[in-house]
Amino acid sequence: MAEPEVERLGLIGIGLIGSSIARVARARGLARHIAVQTRTPDTLARAETLELGDSYSTDPAEAARDSDLVIICVPVGAYEGVAKAIGPALKPGAIVSDVGSVKGSVVQQVVPHLPEGVDFVPAHPVAGTEHSGPEAGFAELFDNRWCIVTPPNGTEAEAIARTIGFWRGCGSEVEVMTPEHHDLVLAITSHVPHLIAYNIVGTAAHLEQVTESEVMKFSAGGFRDFTRIAASDPTMWRDVFLHNREAVLEMLGRFTEDLTALQRQIRYGEGDRLYELFTRTRAIRRGIIEAGQEIDAPDFGRRPPPPKSGG
Amino acid sequence: MAEPEVERLGLIGIGLIGSSIARVARARGLARHIAVQTRTPDTLARAETLELGDSYSTDPAEAARDSDLVIICVPVGAYEGVAKAIGPALKPGAIVSDVGSVKGSVVQQVVPHLPEGVDFVPAHPVAGTEHSGPEAGFAELFDNRWCIVTPPNGTEAEAIARTIGFWRGCGSEVEVMTPEHHDLVLAITSHVPHLIAYNIVGTAAHLEQVTESEVMKFSAGGFRDFTRIAASDPTMWRDVFLHNREAVLEMLGRFTEDLTALQRQIRYGEGDRLYELFTRTRAIRRGIIEAGQEIDAPDFGRRPPPPKSGG
Repeated sequence: MAEPEVERLGLIGIGLIGSSIARVARARGLARHIAVQTRTPDTLARAETLELGDSYSTDPAEAARDSDLVIICVPVGAYEGVAKAIGPALKPGAIVSDVGSVKGSVVQQVVPHLPEGVDFVPAHPVAGTEHSGPEAGFAELFDNRWCIVTPPNGTEAEAIARTIGFWRGCGSEVEVMTPEHHDLVLAITSHVPHLIAYNIVGTAAHLEQVTESEVMKFSAGGFRDFTRIAASDPTMWRDVFLHNREAVLEMLGRFTEDLTALQRQIRYGEGDRLYELFTRTRAIRRGIIEAGQEIDAPDFGRRPPPPKSGG
Repeated sequence: MAEPEVERLGLIGIGLIGSSIARVARARGLARHIAVQTRTPDTLARAETLELGDSYSTDPAEAARDSDLVIICVPVGAYEGVAKAIGPALKPGAIVSDVGSVKGSVVQQVVPHLPEGVDFVPAHPVAGTEHSGPEAGFAELFDNRWCIVTPPNGTEAEAIARTIGFWRGCGSEVEVMTPEHHDLVLAITSHVPHLIAYNIVGTAAHLEQVTESEVMKFSAGGFRDFTRIAASDPTMWRDVFLHNREAVLEMLGRFTEDLTALQRQIRYGEGDRLYELFTRTRAIRRGIIEAGQEIDAPDFGRRPPPPKSGG
């Protein structure tokens, strides 16, 4: 095994993403010491039982002190508090990174609280599941997934390179872009999809003509797919929408405009236009499969249950 | 093996659903003779290569003649033509059923063309994948999935019972409701979900600020899930929207109303209301998993790819 990329890694937050970083860093020797922090004593105890780190604390400053790389893995609404808490404890030359789904806001929240000589290199591994908490993580989460790195203007090239190296070590492909562009791209590839999934699940639960039991029974017609991302962590997603408001509202405006056009095509029976759209969308999925971002099996590879006896 | 439920089964159309019926009927001995019909000689040849039936024809009347049970497995826009073609060939006592995703329209299209003594017992197995064609079917498709049977007023009880028996033999759970109620339930559990999936994939493909390549690379943030159902058969789905227009427009109206409220909550920073919705939606997914309609594994059980060497 080569020398680890990082002597001491501080993880602020140990949920799905934080605990996956801990696992992959351990499994692939990316850090010599992993300092785990989370606010809640119960969650910290669970992380310790899972042996996710080498030291444990409920104090962010404790995990940040002497760390070469500190990764913030909490909901994006909590960053300012974390930055204030860790700022005074950071050593010169330390790098602060993160995993947040929004980048413009986190730069604004974090940068003002960091001491001279410490760089903030924001990162967003585009990977996850609908489960949360330290038990939900796994070492392979980042394999073959993209991690977007969004260094603010003036970030040290060396800090950027080391952050990229760390994420490659975790299994990610890395792309660099501005925080602003990241927030637009993720608004359409992640935030608006989550919003409309949450929305349709909410709509379906409140109909008077169709019961909740019917919605559940007949969900295999398409609805159940939406319930997966609508089962994601509520705090994380509340914060995403509040902190990427402008880009989400812009992309949502496009979505609604297009949906209104589709609605009109249905009302006026314009079958050719519907057919044309439904044909184009097939190609996008093929592209995603070819890009290695989706499995090439029908129905996400979900297996049908075993046949019942008799009949 | 007990006596087969059906002496001669006529399948009009041999795509994903028709070919799955052929496979399960053969595997579980549900029919003594399977007569396969499809319009296109090439598709018929593929069905024959797959040995899906006992006899093959491009003429619907040929498959319907002497059949005890004829199941229409074509897009719902093509039913009237099928009904006209098979009507004169049907023997007294025969049952006509189908698998269409819309029920009110198919009753109107089929019933006027059936001879005296032949019952139409519409059915909709709520099961499928995004693949299509005779190669896409498999015998286990209906296992543990619901099949909704929607007999029009005045249908013979014996015909209803035999149709239900056949679908139970295929592995389905059966529920009976009116065609009108079916169309409302499926509008929210299947049709509107497909429409918004098609729509967001279309929106994403047409942005000037975000490239198609970026959409594909970063699709693991949620977007890729929508591309699955947006890769479904275009002809089938065009017909669904044109033939269930009223219910789709009604449910789409509810969806849009709720989405506008969410949009406003984001604009005005009403985090508590977002959090409240995002918490409620988790319970719906748990209900679907407990109802046996979804697997209990994160990320639909999609496996991460194997780790890359090095790092």
